[in-house]
Amino acid sequence: MTIDSGEVVEKRVENLRKLIKKHKLTGLLITSPENRRYFSGFEAIDPSLNESSGCLLITLKKLHLLTDSRYTESALAEAPLYTVGEGGRRWAKTVASLIGKTGLLGVEDHYLTLAGFNELKNAFGQTEIKPAPFNPSSLRVSKTPSELALIVKALRITEKAISLLWDQFKPGTTEKWAAFFLDRHFKELGGEGPAFETIVAAGKRASLPHAVPGSKKLTSQEMVVIDCGARYRGYASDITRTLVGEKPLEWQKLIYRTVREAQLKALEVIGPGVPACEVDLAARNHIAQAGFGDYFGHSLGHGVGLAVHEEPSLNSVSKVPLPVGAVVTIEPGIYIPGKGGVRLEQLVEITENGRKILNSDLHFYEF
Amino acid sequence: MTIDSGEVVEKRVENLRKLIKKHKLTGLLITSPENRRYFSGFEAIDPSLNESSGCLLITLKKLHLLTDSRYTESALAEAPLYTVGEGGRRWAKTVASLIGKTGLLGVEDHYLTLAGFNELKNAFGQTEIKPAPFNPSSLRVSKTPSELALIVKALRITEKAISLLWDQFKPGTTEKWAAFFLDRHFKELGGEGPAFETIVAAGKRASLPHAVPGSKKLTSQEMVVIDCGARYRGYASDITRTLVGEKPLEWQKLIYRTVREAQLKALEVIGPGVPACEVDLAARNHIAQAGFGDYFGHSLGHGVGLAVHEEPSLNSVSKVPLPVGAVVTIEPGIYIPGKGGVRLEQLVEITENGRKILNSDLHFYEF
Repeated sequence: MTIDSGEVVEKRVENLRKLIKKHKLTGLLITSPENRRYFSGFEAIDPSLNESSGCLLITLKKLHLLTDSRYTESALAEAPLYTVGEGGRRWAKTVASLIGKTGLLGVEDHYLTLAGFNELKNAFGQTEIKPAPFNPSSLRVSKTPSELALIVKALRITEKAISLLWDQFKPGTTEKWAAFFLDRHFKELGGEGPAFETIVAAGKRASLPHAVPGSKKLTSQEMVVIDCGARYRGYASDITRTLVGEKPLEWQKLIYRTVREAQLKALEVIGPGVPACEVDLAARNHIAQAGFGDYFGHSLGHGVGLAVHEEPSLNSVSKVPLPVGAVVTIEPGIYIPGKGGVRLEQLVEITENGRKILNSDLHFYEF
Repeated sequence: MTIDSGEVVEKRVENLRKLIKKHKLTGLLITSPENRRYFSGFEAIDPSLNESSGCLLITLKKLHLLTDSRYTESALAEAPLYTVGEGGRRWAKTVASLIGKTGLLGVEDHYLTLAGFNELKNAFGQTEIKPAPFNPSSLRVSKTPSELALIVKALRITEKAISLLWDQFKPGTTEKWAAFFLDRHFKELGGEGPAFETIVAAGKRASLPHAVPGSKKLTSQEMVVIDCGARYRGYASDITRTLVGEKPLEWQKLIYRTVREAQLKALEVIGPGVPACEVDLAARNHIAQAGFGDYFGHSLGHGVGLAVHEEPSLNSVSKVPLPVGAVVTIEPGIYIPGKGGVRLEQLVEITENGRKILNSDLHFYEF
């Protein structure tokens, strides 16, 4: 059942320990669900697993996984490198006793609650706690070939579901029906289900970038933004397409074309070593020059892997050079309140020679 | 579209302000998704909405909702009592400027990350920050009749889906298929989908209280634990049933009967004003007396509402008296590693005169 072999996990832990050593930490406490899985193999994705019911304590010599009785048996099977201990109410005291009386514990400050931090502080003696001076998630950025294969498989499932939806799309069906259709097919086609809440936003509602699908019916005159992605064996995918009626209006064609051109500009620029902001700005400037600068509020893209949104972020300020093996979305959009919107999203792998579009079909209109 | 009328939200805010005043806070920062919705009407449930993209600042005079551009339009429509502002990278500075130069800000320490706390601290001048000395969620414990109606509707959808599954259950189908069947029907029957990851655990795997459904096939000799709940207009439901083969073995009957008896013991004890631990212990002691004390590791139950797990917790130590209007689960279990397990769960409302079982059918075996 376990996807990540002991060998793979061992290598990941080794890389993490290099960072722990370099930054002179006594140990690192992992509390984010994706890092927990990545560095241990423990697959539980129950969002109710918080710091007290699912954390890893990684030191240079030891590996501990604390969870509660509901998950002990799975943890033992899936994370054989780890000593599985009891979390629950006494988790902070257990962490304190495992790490010892002095030292410096690094924590994931974006995935540790203030309450958890205070519990640790109270349980600790001389041991100090501080946000880890490095981001453990950064080790997840460059995907191995087997991770890439899982992402591509998730993407193929999503593409197939969208193709099936395309064939059955009729005016009169609702957003909710379409979203349900997609979610259902993600599972029927072998995925675990949607990697995130499926977005189907028709007409005016397409100007809401993250609309919850409702009872709005699709009409032949309106545009429909569809943003969805299946999850396959833990790995996410992410696609956005915008459907246009049979006789699109001029303003619809204009914003569609502008978004597609912006995407192509970004795809021209993207490659290994390129600062993330340069890719974002290539698309953003194009949209601004076309006069729609005020209508593209979010960043251009994000990494995709175990998490739907992960590093690297493709925004207008990040100077981080894109590494080989990163998988990122390129998803410019234009959203005009009260009228409608367009977003188009491709999934791209950064390769040694440039980039590879992972999507297998286009589903884009040429106006 | 909006479910919570302005009047209802106003009343809730009024109750919250009484606590803010009583505890001499300048303001309260709400960062948990359920409280955000409960006290504002803003319905977005995207789990990626963190403190910077979805928080409420509630003072005695003002109501602010900070979100990012993806959600501005929905926030304006759904939370008319609030001034909607821009969150994002500058959220902490915005909170600081809104609250003023001095005072005391209460935060939800279980729903604020250490990183968020540090950002606020850096942005604040003389204003102090501390965990709110009360739990805003406690105002959600007693349900109004309209909230109760939504929970019951969610429960009916779940029951109907389970009934349909019962009819189609055949040896040879997989856990995954059964889970998918339930999830699909939650939507087809009018719900928003599963309120949490559906659990279907067959045979030995039934000893994993939170097993992820896999390719394990159901056989006529094994027990199957099914734990699931539809969500309806934001509100959750939660049911567990255990399916037993046509000719159950003696040990299967014994643990099933013991769990059911433990549940009935708890249902005898539960009522308004009763300390939560007394209900838990009524069931727990029965299981221990039958010799299975080591095999019931989790607490007896939890509140259900906008969150699947909310206050009050029915565990062995909480002395909190159960209030009228609370909706809680009663879900004892026995899990024997390597053999199998049984869990049975009812949803119960605390009434003035005692308690009301909200489930409409039983689906229990009598051995």
